[in-house]
Amino acid sequence: MFEAVELGRKLSKPEYGAELPDLRTGLLEAQQSIRKAGLPVVILIAGMDGAGKGTVVHRLNEWLDPRGIDTHTFWKVSGEEQERPYYWRFWRTLPARGRIGIYYGGWYADVLLGRVERRYDTGRLEHELARIAALERMLAEDGALILKFWFHLSRRDQQRRFKGLMRDPDKHQVLLPYNRKHLRWHGRFVAAAEEVIRRTDTGTARWHLVEATQSRYRDLTTGRLVLEALRAGVDRQAKAPPPSRRKPAPERRPSVTVLDRVDLDQQLTSEVYGAELKKLQVKLNRLAWKAHRRRISSILVFEGWDAAGKGSAIRRVTEAVDARLFRVVPVAAPTQEELAQHYLWRFWRHLPRAGLVTVFDRSWYGRVLVERVEGLASREAWSRAYHEINEFESQLTDHGTVLLKFWIHISAEEQLQRFKKREQVAHKQYKIIPEDWRNRRQWGAYELAVHDLVTRTSTSTAPWMLVAGNDKRFARIEILRTFCRALDRAL
Amino acid sequence: MFEAVELGRKLSKPEYGAELPDLRTGLLEAQQSIRKAGLPVVILIAGMDGAGKGTVVHRLNEWLDPRGIDTHTFWKVSGEEQERPYYWRFWRTLPARGRIGIYYGGWYADVLLGRVERRYDTGRLEHELARIAALERMLAEDGALILKFWFHLSRRDQQRRFKGLMRDPDKHQVLLPYNRKHLRWHGRFVAAAEEVIRRTDTGTARWHLVEATQSRYRDLTTGRLVLEALRAGVDRQAKAPPPSRRKPAPERRPSVTVLDRVDLDQQLTSEVYGAELKKLQVKLNRLAWKAHRRRISSILVFEGWDAAGKGSAIRRVTEAVDARLFRVVPVAAPTQEELAQHYLWRFWRHLPRAGLVTVFDRSWYGRVLVERVEGLASREAWSRAYHEINEFESQLTDHGTVLLKFWIHISAEEQLQRFKKREQVAHKQYKIIPEDWRNRRQWGAYELAVHDLVTRTSTSTAPWMLVAGNDKRFARIEILRTFCRALDRAL
Repeated sequence: MFEAVELGRKLSKPEYGAELPDLRTGLLEAQQSIRKAGLPVVILIAGMDGAGKGTVVHRLNEWLDPRGIDTHTFWKVSGEEQERPYYWRFWRTLPARGRIGIYYGGWYADVLLGRVERRYDTGRLEHELARIAALERMLAEDGALILKFWFHLSRRDQQRRFKGLMRDPDKHQVLLPYNRKHLRWHGRFVAAAEEVIRRTDTGTARWHLVEATQSRYRDLTTGRLVLEALRAGVDRQAKAPPPSRRKPAPERRPSVTVLDRVDLDQQLTSEVYGAELKKLQVKLNRLAWKAHRRRISSILVFEGWDAAGKGSAIRRVTEAVDARLFRVVPVAAPTQEELAQHYLWRFWRHLPRAGLVTVFDRSWYGRVLVERVEGLASREAWSRAYHEINEFESQLTDHGTVLLKFWIHISAEEQLQRFKKREQVAHKQYKIIPEDWRNRRQWGAYELAVHDLVTRTSTSTAPWMLVAGNDKRFARIEILRTFCRALDRAL
Repeated sequence: MFEAVELGRKLSKPEYGAELPDLRTGLLEAQQSIRKAGLPVVILIAGMDGAGKGTVVHRLNEWLDPRGIDTHTFWKVSGEEQERPYYWRFWRTLPARGRIGIYYGGWYADVLLGRVERRYDTGRLEHELARIAALERMLAEDGALILKFWFHLSRRDQQRRFKGLMRDPDKHQVLLPYNRKHLRWHGRFVAAAEEVIRRTDTGTARWHLVEATQSRYRDLTTGRLVLEALRAGVDRQAKAPPPSRRKPAPERRPSVTVLDRVDLDQQLTSEVYGAELKKLQVKLNRLAWKAHRRRISSILVFEGWDAAGKGSAIRRVTEAVDARLFRVVPVAAPTQEELAQHYLWRFWRHLPRAGLVTVFDRSWYGRVLVERVEGLASREAWSRAYHEINEFESQLTDHGTVLLKFWIHISAEEQLQRFKKREQVAHKQYKIIPEDWRNRRQWGAYELAVHDLVTRTSTSTAPWMLVAGNDKRFARIEILRTFCRALDRAL
């Protein structure tokens, strides 16, 4: 694979000088088009030690408007990062639409080194590459341009470069302790890079191999490739048909949905409820403290019909947990900063530190519920969301997070009763808004959406619980019991 | 001070039950008014161990709409927090306009415990209280409501409460190891609390002492006080005259400003420049690595006339520093999330982790420059900003950050030449926009603003450097030399 970049290609000073002005003008123009088009750009920089990755980053900052660029390095993993799933550190730095994020090593650094140092076996490698593929596809489908560079040096050139660095006291400190070891491992690096690049060179996230022997050639080639990619990205977007925002044609509801199987007649007497509530809350309090000590986090997702009793069910959970250990994240309309990112970004940003309970009052499932039913997301967007959500959730559960998802189900008649009651009680009026009545008219469409989401996102590690909610007491106890059981199992 | 809250006040169940419904309705309505009025609310919860602070927080979450509330605890300081000034952990959690932040202990927890454990002498106490006063005043002046609660227990009641907790195995885990020690220190806690409360009970950030012997009395009293404060806050805002957004009357420029003393004739030949540049950049590279190892951060602020050469001067700094060690923060219009916070919030959020160089391309000084000159901030707002900025910067320098502020000065004639040139060079056209011409017509007003900002914010630990910029070479070398010298001194 690397034969093609061990050819010793060079550029003379005049050649370089002749091309540079046009390249710079082109890059600046392309960057402005990117900004106007609102495309996020990810430039990933990888390659052999000594290939001059740092210089390339400097060059890009010089040629482009540096105010539109953020550079990210990940060699120091912070405690806060360790307390969350591995990809949190990348999500928190993803470029907003119209901006460029340069990633030094990025999500490839660990997997490459893991392979070179022989810590990652094939199974682990597969696992990591699947994660990478999922991330890149997700970003690309959301409109991001992803460019990945591998700067290559032959064994001989690498040795020569290092000797030069060691002779020059001013550049000496660029050498990190591990560089010398890596020099001996040229062959291993080449093998690992080949394996990883081959497996992750997709149409939407292309690898570019660049010969790094001569810096003029390396920098100019990189500049050209970036320019080409930015232009192509803007063109592609201009030609793409605008995403259809029309309401989709009504879909046929299956004759039986998973919701039909929920037995809504289940109920509890107030005596049984009182006793069970006390018992379970005491138990939950103890378990939450224990989970805190063991640094195991829980995430509870609450979805359900309007007036299904989400709020009061959530309160029965949170009032059992010490106020220092839980947080409720209400999910409303996204902010401007959130809209400038992939829709999952705003959930990643709220992931808790270790040992805490986070309750999402509505969640990332909005994409396949309200956004689907109301036509706020295009069919392509919500269709791929199931997969994106499964990927996201698998990262949570792989990290050891206890993840529970509740759909509180009530009948349409029960909802009507509750709406009417809310309109009568003074301190409940704020809970009923015109939108609730509007949503109610879409009952069938929501049933279908719920059916699909359960079918597609109820997994063994993150199952959906369909809770019978016509009797609020029954629902609350069911939820508390499920949470206690799940925590018990995890501890 | 605490005699008034050792009276053994109680509420009977019927009394409590009679008042509760109105209180809850009132609280919900007040919360909605707060949201509409866009007032951020800070509720700080402190008090004796065993006073039921956690229960109060639960109660507030029950009575108010929990989706508008975030609760924050600070017993675990993360590594990322330690790498920044102490108050970063509070700034990152401040409630947005219209939301309520409940702070468990908040910025009082450490100072109280420091006093109780006799780690803080009077000097340290003074220092911490001054910081607290500055923060609270800053938030209050920005419109925030600040309520501070001290939940009190007499020695006898505290002992009784603890015995109860220890007998009840279900509540046992609420007791943290330090609680027993604190029990012996009742007197010390009372003394420390009295000292701190007396000194921080200001008109805009009132302390409320609440007797915590009986939970019904404690919770209802707290609810009433919160309701009263929310209502008063909304009323006050409704009555306040709208901040004047009119352009201020032109101010008289002093006959001589600090800018007049900058010798704009200074220049360097291209030979001297070339040699100096190389020497200083090599030196800076070494110093930046050393600072990184020693975990000392630098923050460089660049301000100056349009076309003064900020961008190219910044590049001469950043190209000397390893790309993994610096970040450029371009300051443009604030985002929606940023507008929902105190204006300094968007700078706090970008503070770097330890050992990095952060360059602000424009900065928090926008408040007293463009916002002042263009009348975007009211006179009161920009007038108090000098003090707020000094406070912010003193936290940076106290933390050990190297802070440098550059104003790149050029003459009006020089600016005109550069504007014209920019319009001619293809890849520089993006740098000249109509606003630049508009700003130019305000030259005198900016001179006055610069004069004031230097007079009021050039301190010994964070001095302003007025850089002669008519000769770009001279300016760049001056800046590099200043930065090297400052790093050298800090290391």
